[in-house]
Amino acid sequence: MIGTADGIFQNLAAGVRDSAFRVRFWDGTERTYGDGDPRFTVAFDSREALDAVLTLGSLGTGEAYMEGALDVEGDLHEFFRVGSHPSVRSPRLGTRDKAMIVAAYVRNRNTLRKARENIEHHYDLGNDFYRLWLDEGMTYSCAYWDETCDGDLGAAQRAKYEHICRKLHLRAGDRLVEFGSGWGGMLAHAGREYGVEGVGCTLSTQQHEYASERFVAEGLHPRVRSELIDYRKMEGTFDKFVSIGMFEHVGREYYSTFFEKVRALLVDGGVGVLHTIGREREAGLDPFISKYIFPGAYLPTIGQLGDSMAEAGLVMTDMENLRLHYARTLDSWAERFEARVEEIRDRFGERFVRMWRFYLHGCSSGFKWGDLRVFQITFTNGLNSALPMTRSHVYVR
Amino acid sequence: MIGTADGIFQNLAAGVRDSAFRVRFWDGTERTYGDGDPRFTVAFDSREALDAVLTLGSLGTGEAYMEGALDVEGDLHEFFRVGSHPSVRSPRLGTRDKAMIVAAYVRNRNTLRKARENIEHHYDLGNDFYRLWLDEGMTYSCAYWDETCDGDLGAAQRAKYEHICRKLHLRAGDRLVEFGSGWGGMLAHAGREYGVEGVGCTLSTQQHEYASERFVAEGLHPRVRSELIDYRKMEGTFDKFVSIGMFEHVGREYYSTFFEKVRALLVDGGVGVLHTIGREREAGLDPFISKYIFPGAYLPTIGQLGDSMAEAGLVMTDMENLRLHYARTLDSWAERFEARVEEIRDRFGERFVRMWRFYLHGCSSGFKWGDLRVFQITFTNGLNSALPMTRSHVYVR
Repeated sequence: MIGTADGIFQNLAAGVRDSAFRVRFWDGTERTYGDGDPRFTVAFDSREALDAVLTLGSLGTGEAYMEGALDVEGDLHEFFRVGSHPSVRSPRLGTRDKAMIVAAYVRNRNTLRKARENIEHHYDLGNDFYRLWLDEGMTYSCAYWDETCDGDLGAAQRAKYEHICRKLHLRAGDRLVEFGSGWGGMLAHAGREYGVEGVGCTLSTQQHEYASERFVAEGLHPRVRSELIDYRKMEGTFDKFVSIGMFEHVGREYYSTFFEKVRALLVDGGVGVLHTIGREREAGLDPFISKYIFPGAYLPTIGQLGDSMAEAGLVMTDMENLRLHYARTLDSWAERFEARVEEIRDRFGERFVRMWRFYLHGCSSGFKWGDLRVFQITFTNGLNSALPMTRSHVYVR
Repeated sequence: MIGTADGIFQNLAAGVRDSAFRVRFWDGTERTYGDGDPRFTVAFDSREALDAVLTLGSLGTGEAYMEGALDVEGDLHEFFRVGSHPSVRSPRLGTRDKAMIVAAYVRNRNTLRKARENIEHHYDLGNDFYRLWLDEGMTYSCAYWDETCDGDLGAAQRAKYEHICRKLHLRAGDRLVEFGSGWGGMLAHAGREYGVEGVGCTLSTQQHEYASERFVAEGLHPRVRSELIDYRKMEGTFDKFVSIGMFEHVGREYYSTFFEKVRALLVDGGVGVLHTIGREREAGLDPFISKYIFPGAYLPTIGQLGDSMAEAGLVMTDMENLRLHYARTLDSWAERFEARVEEIRDRFGERFVRMWRFYLHGCSSGFKWGDLRVFQITFTNGLNSALPMTRSHVYVR
């Protein structure tokens, strides 16, 4: 077993630039792979842990890491960089494992009832938990690290909201609808800075309560409000639409439903911004992320978005790929998470801490070296010829 | 016959906002449709002309207009606005007409030999002809009407080149390759303003000769040069790629070939800009345009571009839809065309003048009210994490 693994690790070290790492096997044997100083040591406490990594890809690795059967000493980020090399990224799953993954996706399909369970699974871990390591504005999506934010997470999240408001060409009195309004950061910004009338929906009770209190505290209620409701149940007429980091939870089979709903809510020529993680090529969600972090989630391609939006009569006017902005956001979250890790461990236990650490670092590596992207798409409902001809209003005030 | 047409025109006038027009039939009868002052009069010189319009859509209308069997007195642009209403835009073609259109597309498929014929058909009409009404830089693609160009076509074309150079993040010494380099405007700008090494290809002998002389005259040769060659025959290694208004001539069945070639020419992480007319939903090219103006042409959707680029390993980083910029460009060309129409008529005859008039106004209306778009797409060959994180370098210097 160690012999087989030895060859695999040698090939890996040869294939990845500037990689050197050490492996400690369960019998105490240590081997070093690659040239230079090793940046991390992977320790396997059993033959089974090694086997899980070699045969089950990210799912096996993640589970072994969660349970402590696999540990990474040193630079965890570097471990993911090496691990995201194409030669190890495709798990050699058998038919049975593949069938289980598909079955899990189907089981978690976002029907009205299941969508609520899927959302509660992650977002109702508790406002106290997210408050520990999110920015002060409680934003849980990719920030926008422009020149103004000086490396500060809160500033980068505000810059993101401002960036989107400019793309939306928001004006006082605009009626703005948001799908997946979370803890209310976007609507609070748009309500405060642009004087819009805003309504958002979320399926997380804790997010809804937090957002509602926030809108009252900021004096924005009832002009700005949150509803605890599925996006498919939203009603009304709106000038502008926004959705940030929610489309990942919609699921492939509901894209038409989603965009038809957007079209039905927007006035003719209404403007929208859709901000979502995506990828170039169609693929299932990472099995570890799907099982432990985001059940029911699915990431769109540009091709799928282009076709689905067109089908609903929406006109894509702009697309910005914010890939590295999400890597930097996740790195910031991981750092803040570690700063409060004692409190998190006390409340949720070591397994939870390791699961989240694997998730945050793994996703960051996916944006840096893997196939994860962020598509921030501006569109109009049918044609709108009254908007500015160029995008300079987003950059020059 | 007039009775049937009468109902159709009445419905049309009722369906289009602020439309009022007059129709003069071959027997001298005149009728006015819609409320208010008529903005144009459509005159049919025969029953056959009316029949062609009603049954063959844009092809029948275009041919009748070319031959003078149909005339438009007054505002030709308004004629196209009314004519682009959904109720008249789908020609009620029979199976035989549809089959002929498909057969023509297949016949004009861009094999190496046919591609050259298709390009010569349009672009070798003569440099003297295009010089009459293009801007002084001889640019025959959508301009970029930003704040700096003050309504001047030449300035807007230079602004377009500058906009693309910034998106490409051009640096002195960059090796730039262009597919469809035309009369050399883009390469001259990039060579002069950014000090790149540039090579472009065109299939038009006249464009190639003009561009080559221009590069010598500007002192850019041999650092910047044109080749009379098919893009599929290009060889070399390049840092940057650009193609403006050429992808329309590639044809659906060659998208993989095109993007595989781009990938093969670019270094890892190389940057490209693809600028092309497109549309949201898949459709055949307008039959009139296909038959008389651009044989072998086909317009891509965002979905097709997303999928084809992904398949070749290209990462879309930015998409800007310049729809109205092309309408304004075409309007400027139409105005300049009319200013020199006597010379054009003397050389090419009245039928040619009317064909071009129909083409320029018809396309402008497609961008304003129809389904024509312009996609300006930035991409990288694989991942490139060294580029600026935001797009502000395009707007703020």
